[in-house]
Amino acid sequence: MILSEKIIQDHNTSLLAKHKLHFEFAKSQINDVDSIIKRLVDFQVAIPSWALGTGGTRFGRFPGGGEPRSLEEKIEDVGLLHALNKTSGAISLHIPWDIPTAPKDIQTLAAQHGLAFDAVNSNTFQDQADQEYSYKFGSLQNVNKAIRKQAVDHNIEVIKHGVDLGSKSLTVWLSDGSCFPGQLNFRKAFENTLESLQEIYAALPADWKMFVEYKAFEPNFYSMTVGDWGQSLLFANKLGEKAYTLVDLGHHLPNANIEQIVSLLMMEGKLGGFHFNDSKYGDDDLTVGSIKPYQLFLIFNELTQGAQLNNAPFDQGSGFGWMIDASHNIKDPLEDLLQSVEAIQIAYAQSLLVDTIALEDARQNNDVAKAQEILQEAYRTDVRALVAEARIRAGASLSPIAAYRDLKVRKELISERGLKTIATGL
Amino acid sequence: MILSEKIIQDHNTSLLAKHKLHFEFAKSQINDVDSIIKRLVDFQVAIPSWALGTGGTRFGRFPGGGEPRSLEEKIEDVGLLHALNKTSGAISLHIPWDIPTAPKDIQTLAAQHGLAFDAVNSNTFQDQADQEYSYKFGSLQNVNKAIRKQAVDHNIEVIKHGVDLGSKSLTVWLSDGSCFPGQLNFRKAFENTLESLQEIYAALPADWKMFVEYKAFEPNFYSMTVGDWGQSLLFANKLGEKAYTLVDLGHHLPNANIEQIVSLLMMEGKLGGFHFNDSKYGDDDLTVGSIKPYQLFLIFNELTQGAQLNNAPFDQGSGFGWMIDASHNIKDPLEDLLQSVEAIQIAYAQSLLVDTIALEDARQNNDVAKAQEILQEAYRTDVRALVAEARIRAGASLSPIAAYRDLKVRKELISERGLKTIATGL
Amino acid sequence: MILSEKIIQDHNTSLLAKHKLHFEFAKSQINDVDSIIKRLVDFQVAIPSWALGTGGTRFGRFPGGGEPRSLEEKIEDVGLLHALNKTSGAISLHIPWDIPTAPKDIQTLAAQHGLAFDAVNSNTFQDQADQEYSYKFGSLQNVNKAIRKQAVDHNIEVIKHGVDLGSKSLTVWLSDGSCFPGQLNFRKAFENTLESLQEIYAALPADWKMFVEYKAFEPNFYSMTVGDWGQSLLFANKLGEKAYTLVDLGHHLPNANIEQIVSLLMMEGKLGGFHFNDSKYGDDDLTVGSIKPYQLFLIFNELTQGAQLNNAPFDQGSGFGWMIDASHNIKDPLEDLLQSVEAIQIAYAQSLLVDTIALEDARQNNDVAKAQEILQEAYRTDVRALVAEARIRAGASLSPIAAYRDLKVRKELISERGLKTIATGL
Amino acid sequence: MILSEKIIQDHNTSLLAKHKLHFEFAKSQINDVDSIIKRLVDFQVAIPSWALGTGGTRFGRFPGGGEPRSLEEKIEDVGLLHALNKTSGAISLHIPWDIPTAPKDIQTLAAQHGLAFDAVNSNTFQDQADQEYSYKFGSLQNVNKAIRKQAVDHNIEVIKHGVDLGSKSLTVWLSDGSCFPGQLNFRKAFENTLESLQEIYAALPADWKMFVEYKAFEPNFYSMTVGDWGQSLLFANKLGEKAYTLVDLGHHLPNANIEQIVSLLMMEGKLGGFHFNDSKYGDDDLTVGSIKPYQLFLIFNELTQGAQLNNAPFDQGSGFGWMIDASHNIKDPLEDLLQSVEAIQIAYAQSLLVDTIALEDARQNNDVAKAQEILQEAYRTDVRALVAEARIRAGASLSPIAAYRDLKVRKELISERGLKTIATGL
Repeated sequence: MILSEKIIQDHNTSLLAKHKLHFEFAKSQINDVDSIIKRLVDFQVAIPSWALGTGGTRFGRFPGGGEPRSLEEKIEDVGLLHALNKTSGAISLHIPWDIPTAPKDIQTLAAQHGLAFDAVNSNTFQDQADQEYSYKFGSLQNVNKAIRKQAVDHNIEVIKHGVDLGSKSLTVWLSDGSCFPGQLNFRKAFENTLESLQEIYAALPADWKMFVEYKAFEPNFYSMTVGDWGQSLLFANKLGEKAYTLVDLGHHLPNANIEQIVSLLMMEGKLGGFHFNDSKYGDDDLTVGSIKPYQLFLIFNELTQGAQLNNAPFDQGSGFGWMIDASHNIKDPLEDLLQSVEAIQIAYAQSLLVDTIALEDARQNNDVAKAQEILQEAYRTDVRALVAEARIRAGASLSPIAAYRDLKVRKELISERGLKTIATGL
Repeated sequence: MILSEKIIQDHNTSLLAKHKLHFEFAKSQINDVDSIIKRLVDFQVAIPSWALGTGGTRFGRFPGGGEPRSLEEKIEDVGLLHALNKTSGAISLHIPWDIPTAPKDIQTLAAQHGLAFDAVNSNTFQDQADQEYSYKFGSLQNVNKAIRKQAVDHNIEVIKHGVDLGSKSLTVWLSDGSCFPGQLNFRKAFENTLESLQEIYAALPADWKMFVEYKAFEPNFYSMTVGDWGQSLLFANKLGEKAYTLVDLGHHLPNANIEQIVSLLMMEGKLGGFHFNDSKYGDDDLTVGSIKPYQLFLIFNELTQGAQLNNAPFDQGSGFGWMIDASHNIKDPLEDLLQSVEAIQIAYAQSLLVDTIALEDARQNNDVAKAQEILQEAYRTDVRALVAEARIRAGASLSPIAAYRDLKVRKELISERGLKTIATGL
Repeated sequence: MILSEKIIQDHNTSLLAKHKLHFEFAKSQINDVDSIIKRLVDFQVAIPSWALGTGGTRFGRFPGGGEPRSLEEKIEDVGLLHALNKTSGAISLHIPWDIPTAPKDIQTLAAQHGLAFDAVNSNTFQDQADQEYSYKFGSLQNVNKAIRKQAVDHNIEVIKHGVDLGSKSLTVWLSDGSCFPGQLNFRKAFENTLESLQEIYAALPADWKMFVEYKAFEPNFYSMTVGDWGQSLLFANKLGEKAYTLVDLGHHLPNANIEQIVSLLMMEGKLGGFHFNDSKYGDDDLTVGSIKPYQLFLIFNELTQGAQLNNAPFDQGSGFGWMIDASHNIKDPLEDLLQSVEAIQIAYAQSLLVDTIALEDARQNNDVAKAQEILQEAYRTDVRALVAEARIRAGASLSPIAAYRDLKVRKELISERGLKTIATGL
Repeated sequence: MILSEKIIQDHNTSLLAKHKLHFEFAKSQINDVDSIIKRLVDFQVAIPSWALGTGGTRFGRFPGGGEPRSLEEKIEDVGLLHALNKTSGAISLHIPWDIPTAPKDIQTLAAQHGLAFDAVNSNTFQDQADQEYSYKFGSLQNVNKAIRKQAVDHNIEVIKHGVDLGSKSLTVWLSDGSCFPGQLNFRKAFENTLESLQEIYAALPADWKMFVEYKAFEPNFYSMTVGDWGQSLLFANKLGEKAYTLVDLGHHLPNANIEQIVSLLMMEGKLGGFHFNDSKYGDDDLTVGSIKPYQLFLIFNELTQGAQLNNAPFDQGSGFGWMIDASHNIKDPLEDLLQSVEAIQIAYAQSLLVDTIALEDARQNNDVAKAQEILQEAYRTDVRALVAEARIRAGASLSPIAAYRDLKVRKELISERGLKTIATGL
C-alpha cells in the first residue's frame, strides 16, 4: 500500500481551516516561527525494522494483523509512516532479521519511499538456527575466544550489509552480563568485550561511527557488561574517535537523571544518538512521551542547547543516530510509531521555544524560580500547530493518526498481507 | 530416571565422616537441635511444573537438554529432587500446560515418588490456540463480559483438574492491567475483576483456598490490577474467608519491605503463601537466596514468629502455599531448584535459632543494637550441618547438588529424553 | 504587608490586553469555558504554616530573609498569596509550632485575609523542650504505654486548638517505624498504633475527619508503621467512617502508580486528601509540577472522574483536604508556593478538558491509542489563559509571580521583619 | 576514659574457653587460618570524627548522653573503640568541625591511643557563621568565581590541617547540584567544578591523594554535579594520577551493582577508597552490614580479588581510604561503630575464604551454579571465631560490644561529660 501525496492532501483539506486558526494564533505568540518550522521540517527520526510488528513480553505475545512479512514490506510500512509525517525518513535494519539479499533492489525501493538507511544493528543476544556456538553466556564478553570471534564476525558482516545499503553507523547493543553473583569476572568480561569491540572497530569504514549502547539490566539480572553511561564511555574512549555512547531512554536505574547524562556526553563529544521510548519501571519500551513527557522535553532542551554550544546542530546531517525503539504490545505498531514521532516533534519544538539567553541569565543569578518559569513557559505552550504546519510544508498529513484511521490503512494491510502474519522482532 | 534410596545412601557414605564432625559441633553450640531438625524434616516446598525447563526472557531462550516432555516426566523430575532432598514433596501444576488426561494414573505416579499436588495455577495471561477470545486486554478485568466469562470458566476448569488430583488450593495470578495512561478505568477494572473472582470463588470446594497473587509490574507496564498487597488484601477481604494473599518475592517495587508485609498479612489472617525466588531489579526470578539472603532470613523470622503468635505453625499441615517460582535461564533447572530449596532450608533453620524471648525483651527496652545482635547471631551461625542432618534423617542426600552431579543425573535425562527437548513454561 | 485588590488590579492592567487575546483564543477552542472557570474559581488549596520559611535538609539550611516570626505573620504571608491568586484561601496549622494563644484574634485576623483554617497537624516526630518522654523510638507505636499516652494527649490537644479556630480535620503523620531489622515487632507496633489512633479518634468532634498519612521511608530507614496506602487504609477501616487515607505525592516507593491508588481509595470512599509536592527520588518536597507534571495531571484526572462517579465533586465543600506540602530549600518560599498553586490549577483545568464520554468509549473498545490521544489532547492544551481568567474573575492577579516580583513583596517583608528571621518548620 | 589492655584481657578471660572451642573447630575446617588471621590483624578502618555523636534527620535529632565535646574527646572515643577491637586505628577529621588548634598536642594524644590520621574532609555543604559567601547554590560549581575561590581556599586550608597531623589524603564530597530542572547548566557546573578541583589538586602535597566522592541525590534533589561513578571518574581522570574515586555504599540509585563498579574502578587504577554504611532506600547511613550483608561480602570479594590481580594488597599500607560513614540516629554511636567494624571484618574474612582458583575455573567453564556454590560456601561459613582470634592476637576484646556494655563505658562517659552534650556533625 502506498499513500500518495494527493490522498494525504485531500485528507488535509477538511482540517485546514481549523489548523489555520491555530497556527495564526501560534504565530502571533511565538517569535521567528518560520525558523522553528524549518528545523522541524529538517528533523528526521529513524524507524527500526523490528518495531513494525506487535511486540511481546516473556509472558505472551498478542499479534495484530497485516504485519510485514519481509524486508520489502517493512520498507513499505516505514514508507507509509513517512508519507504521513515526513519525519520518518530512515529505516534502521536489524541483522539477521532483515538480511538484504538484493541490496540494490532494496535501496531502490527505499529511495522510492524517500527513505535512507540509518544505523545497522547486530544481534548477539539470541542464537540463530545455523549458528555454531551459543551466546547463552555472552557474546563479545565470552570466556571462549571462538565464541567471541563468532560474534565479532557477525558484527563485521552486519557492517558489510550496512555498506551495501548506504548506512553510516553500527549500533552494538550487548545483552552480555551475568545473572548471579560469582558468575562473571567483571574485569575480564570488560577486557574481553573491549578486545572484541576493537576488532569490530577495526573493520569500520572510515566514515562510519560505532554506537555503544548501555543498559542497566535485562536480559541479565545481576550485572550488565555495558551497564551504564560510565561503562559505555569507557569503551568509547578506549576505542577511538569513531566510537560513541548511545542512550536508550529506558535503559537506566530508577530515577536516573538522563538529561544530565546527555549534557555530559555532549560535553565530552561522545553522544552518539538515542533510542527513544518511554517507561515507568524499566525497559518498558512504551510509546515515546506517553509516561514522562516533561523528561523528554528536558532531554531535548539539553540537545538544543548542547548543539548550540558545540556549534553542531544535531538535526542537520550531524550524524546523530535518532531512532525510536519501542515494543508495541497492545497498540497497532504504526499508530504507536506515529504517536511517538509526534511526541518527539512536540518536545523538540518546545525546546526551540526556550529563551536561552534569559535562561542563562537566570542561572547566572541563581534565580531558580525564574529558570523554572522559563522552561515551563516553553513546555506549557501548545506547539501542536507548529508541528502540524511543519508537516503541511513538508507535504505530510496535518493529523497523521486521523489520516491513518480515516484512510483505513491497517484494514488495507490486512487485506494485502493477511490477518495472521508475524513480523520478526521481539 | 529414579534415584533409589540406596544409591543416595551410598553416595552419602563418603561424606558422612565430615558431616558428623560438623554436626557434633553444631549440636554442642545450639540448644534443642532435635526439635529444629524435626521441623526441617517436616518442612516441604512445592515445585512448580513450569520450573523444570529452561526459562527465557523476551530477548531469547537458551534451552538445555533432557527437559521433561510431558507431565509424567515433570513428575519424574520433581521425584528426583525429592529423592535428593526429601523437601520437595509436592508439585504445583499449571493449566493448560499440564492438563492431566488420566488423573488417576498421574496421582499414582506422583504417589510413587512421594509427591502431593499443591495449588493449581490458571493461565489467563497467554492465548491458547483453541481459545475463542483473546486476553490481549486482560482477562478477569476485561470490559467484555464474554471474555471475563471465558477466563472464569477456565479457572473453574482448573479447579476441577485440581480436585481430580487432590489439590486444595487455586492460585490466581493475573497479568491484567494497562500499559498506558488512559487505557483503563482503574475502578471498573477492579470491579470487573472482583466480580470475576467472586464467580470463581463460588466454584471453590469447601476445603479449598484461593490465593490472590499480586505483582507490581510486567507484563503490563503502567498499571497492574492486582498490583500490591493492599489491592490483593482488598480482593481477599471482599471475597471471603477462603481467599488469601499470596506473596511472590520478586513482585514488588524497589526497596519494598517484604517482611513487614508478611507480618501484617499474618496479623490479618490473610497470608496464603509464597512464591520464592530472588531478584535485584524486578521479577528477575533468580535462584532463591542468591541475591538477598538476609532478606530471606528476615521473612522467615516473621513467619516463625507469626506462627507462634497465631498458634498455627506454618509447617505442619497449615495449608500455607509454599512454592518456588523461578526462571532458570542459564542454570540447569534441577540444580537451580536444589540450590533454592537449600537456601530456603537454611533461612528457615536460622529463623528457628532466634532467641525470641531475648528479642522481645530487647524490643521492649528499645535496645536496638541488642535486637540486631540477636538476629545476626542466628543469621551468622552456620546451620548447614543441621540442614544436612535433617536430610539424612529423612533419607535424603547429605549434599544434593554433589549427588546430582556425581550421579550424572542430567546426562542420564538427556540420554533418555534427548538433547533438544523444550518443556512448557516461560 | 497587605496587597490590596486595587494594587493588584493596577498591576493587571498592563497585562490585560495580551491576556484577552489568549483567552479569546482559548474560548474559541474549548467548550463550556465558563463552567470550567467557575470550578477553578471555587477551587482552594490550603497552605501549611510550616511552608512559609526556608526549609532545609539534614546537611544544611540556607535561610532567606523576611520569614514570618509568628503565627500572625504566617497568616499575613498566606494572605499575600491568597490576594495574589485567590486560590490559597486556607491555612493549615502545625502544633506546637503555631499554638494560637488568642484564638479569637487569630480567627479575626485570618478572616480579614479571607482565610479559613484547614486541617490541624500534630507533631510527634520531634521532641519539644518541655516534653516528659522522648519520641526517639516512636510515639503512637511506642512499647511504653506512657509515651503513647503523651502522644495521644498531644493529638487531642491539637484537636482542641483546631476546634478553637474552626478546623474540621486532624492530619496525623507519624514518623514511627524502625531503622534496623529486629528493632520492631511489626505487629505489635501496628496494634499499639491502632489503639492510640482509636483513643484520638474517640476525641474527634462529630463533624471532624481524621486523615491518616502514610510514608514509605524517612526518617525511619527500615520500616514505617504507616508505610503505604494499604496500611493506611487498614487503619482507616478499623477506625471508622471519620477516618481517611491521606496521600502525599512524595511518600511512595520508586515508580509507584499514585493515580491508581487515588482511584481505588475513591472507590472505597476513603480518600481523605492530598499533600501536594513533587519529587524525583523520594520525599524531595519540591515545587508541585516541577518534575512530573503529567503525573499530576493524571492524578487530577482520577479525581475529576472519581468525583463524577461518586457524585461528590471534590471542590465544592466536600471536605477533601488539599494542601501543599513542600520544602523550599533554595527558592523564596512564597514564590515556590505561587508556582505550586499555579501548577495545581493547570493540572486541574486540563483534567476538566478531558472528553470523558469519548474516553470511556475508547476504553470500552480497548482503543488504547485513542484513549492516550484523548488524555494528551487535554494535557497538551495550553490552559493558562483559563487559569488567568479565573483569577481575574476572582479578583486576583493575572500573573501572581510577576506581581509578586514587580511589587517587591519580599523586599518589603525583609524591611518589616528583618533579614535574619527563621520561621519554625523543617 | 581509657580502657587499658589489662581490663580488656580480664574481660576476655571468661569468654576464652568458649572461644577456643569455636576457634579449634574453625581451624579444623579452614585452610591456612594463620595467614587469614594475620590479614585481619593488619586491617584497619578509619572512624570519622562526626560519627561519634548521635546523628539526625531533617525531621528530628534525639541526642544521647556523654557525646564528645571536643576534638580531644573524639580522639578519646576512637581510642576506646580501638582498644576494644584494634581495628579502628585511624581517625578522619572534618574541617571546620574539628580544627586542631594545637596540632602537635593532638598528634601526641592520638599516638597515645595508637591512632593515625586518615583522610581529612572539607565541608562546603553548609555555611559557617563567619563565612563571606553562602554555598546555597553550590560551592566548587558556583556561577560566582568568588564563591568558588572561597570553597577552593577552604579545601586548601583543610589540606594544611591534614599536613600538620600526618594525613595523606583529602576527601572532597560535594553537595553541589540542583533542585529543579533549568536551575543549572550541567556542563558549566561540571567545568566550574573541574576548574576548582584543579586548583585544589595543585595544592596537594606530592605524597597525597585526592578522593572525589560521588552521590546520586540529597541534599540536591534534581541533579548532583558529582552524581555517579562515571562522573567521578571523569573528574579523577582529568585531574591526574593523584585523584581517585571514592565509593560510599549509600550513594547510589536503587538496585545499582556496586561490586561491579568497584571492580571496574580497580581495573582503571582509580579506586580510592570507601565510605562504609548500609541502606535500604538511599543514603540511610545505617550500620554496616545491617541490611545487605551479602552485598558487603560481594564487594569485599572484588577487593580481595582485585588486589591480587593488581598485585597491590589493599590492606597493607596501600593507601586505600577505608572509613565508616554512618549516622547513628537511634543507637549508641560507639556500639553502632563496633557493630560496623565487626560486620566489615566478617565480610573481609569471608572473602578470604573464597576458593579463587576454583572460582575462576567455574567461570572459565560457565558453570554458574558452581560459581554460586563457591561464593556461598565462603559466605555461609561462620568466621566469627577467626575474627575473634584476630582480636585476641592483637590485644583486643574477644567480644567488643559485650565488653563495652559490661565495662559500662557509656555510663562512665556520661558521668565525665554530662548527659546533654551534642557532638558536632550531622
